[in-house]
Amino acid sequence: MNNPDAALREIDRAIDDLGATGVQMYTNVAGRPLDAPEYRPLFARMAERRLPIWLHPARPPSFADYAGEPRSKFDIWWAFGWPYETSATMARLVFSGLFDRHPDLAIITHHMGAMIPFCAGRVGGGLDQLGSRTDDPDDMAALGRLRKRPIDYFKMFYGDTALFGAWHAMESGLAFFGADRILFGTDMPFDPEKGNGFIRDTIEAMQKMRATDDERAKIYEGNARRLLRLQGFGRAS
Amino acid sequence: MNNPDAALREIDRAIDDLGATGVQMYTNVAGRPLDAPEYRPLFARMAERRLPIWLHPARPPSFADYAGEPRSKFDIWWAFGWPYETSATMARLVFSGLFDRHPDLAIITHHMGAMIPFCAGRVGGGLDQLGSRTDDPDDMAALGRLRKRPIDYFKMFYGDTALFGAWHAMESGLAFFGADRILFGTDMPFDPEKGNGFIRDTIEAMQKMRATDDERAKIYEGNARRLLRLQGFGRAS
Repeated sequence: MNNPDAALREIDRAIDDLGATGVQMYTNVAGRPLDAPEYRPLFARMAERRLPIWLHPARPPSFADYAGEPRSKFDIWWAFGWPYETSATMARLVFSGLFDRHPDLAIITHHMGAMIPFCAGRVGGGLDQLGSRTDDPDDMAALGRLRKRPIDYFKMFYGDTALFGAWHAMESGLAFFGADRILFGTDMPFDPEKGNGFIRDTIEAMQKMRATDDERAKIYEGNARRLLRLQGFGRAS
Repeated sequence: MNNPDAALREIDRAIDDLGATGVQMYTNVAGRPLDAPEYRPLFARMAERRLPIWLHPARPPSFADYAGEPRSKFDIWWAFGWPYETSATMARLVFSGLFDRHPDLAIITHHMGAMIPFCAGRVGGGLDQLGSRTDDPDDMAALGRLRKRPIDYFKMFYGDTALFGAWHAMESGLAFFGADRILFGTDMPFDPEKGNGFIRDTIEAMQKMRATDDERAKIYEGNARRLLRLQGFGRAS
């Protein structure tokens, strides 16, 4: 990503020569946000290829939580900093006009949209008031550049179910994104058992959450088959 | 708060002379976290007085989201930075052993526990592995100082319903904290209508969320009467 031209070529090689069904991007590139102009061709290419981008958070312990401290303690940078950075990146992409340029681009956010479903009220009535909280001229102009309310763009992302068994959070994500925009994922093998734990917990949460059989089938399988264009694999014909 | 001795005296004056039923603290004091040793007597005093602390987030636009930038854009510092800072503060208080020292202390977190309910899986199986992600000796030692799993302490906080109408997030908060630890709150008057909007939206969400009448009564009124010790006010006798 620090060489966008090379990344473009690698996208094409991965898809055309290696059969990749999408690419992963981290939420920052050596401290640069993904709405920086040099990354626009990468998003355009994935929209053109009609394949998804997986958005994965990245933040080190050196990103301090308090102005008076040199680093983050007690894994706060991981537990909350990762979902925070995913959410910040989603906001930056929204306000850059990405989804006005590429309304069909699929970006799969880790951990079910990070903070967005639970903060749906802040993203809704809160960001509708962008420009009223600071005198930054960029903030003032941002809403005027978009065709829709900010929250309508946040709903254009996809989420995965990697919430480590938090069934009530999965219900919140389902209510926010809808069943067509959620894909099954577990974060295996990063559980205390080094693999099986999060798979088991996520399947249990899938069964416990309030959802129809049709919604579960989309999340387990149907959405991945559609987004990754897996025609010809297994029982999808 | 920058003069803890004076803050202690003000707590006593507010409660004894003015009839206050609790105090508010912000999530940082000029960039210092609330687990700093000089604030311990304040938490001890509120535990002794058996009245709650309202925890309110505070973060300015100058707190940048990316290492390569000087400030936060598009109200990200507000939309996501405030819940992030509430969550970071909750973690700091948990790992300081606050609830081992004061198991009955009531801390009411704004916006329904901020990121904690949605991130219940990260707080659970994730923070159970504290010490495995860095070589910081403080992180390594933190779990050993606590009597319970981290998540069990996070469940000792209280949350308010100021989620601006996100009924599915309220259900997630209810599943995490339970009906005895949630209090009705709206964030009035900070909606686009300058008052009525968030009240109306929150009441609608209270009615729409999956909860029993008994749970709703606790959230609307019963928990506040108990925590604020409002015996003799209105219909509680």
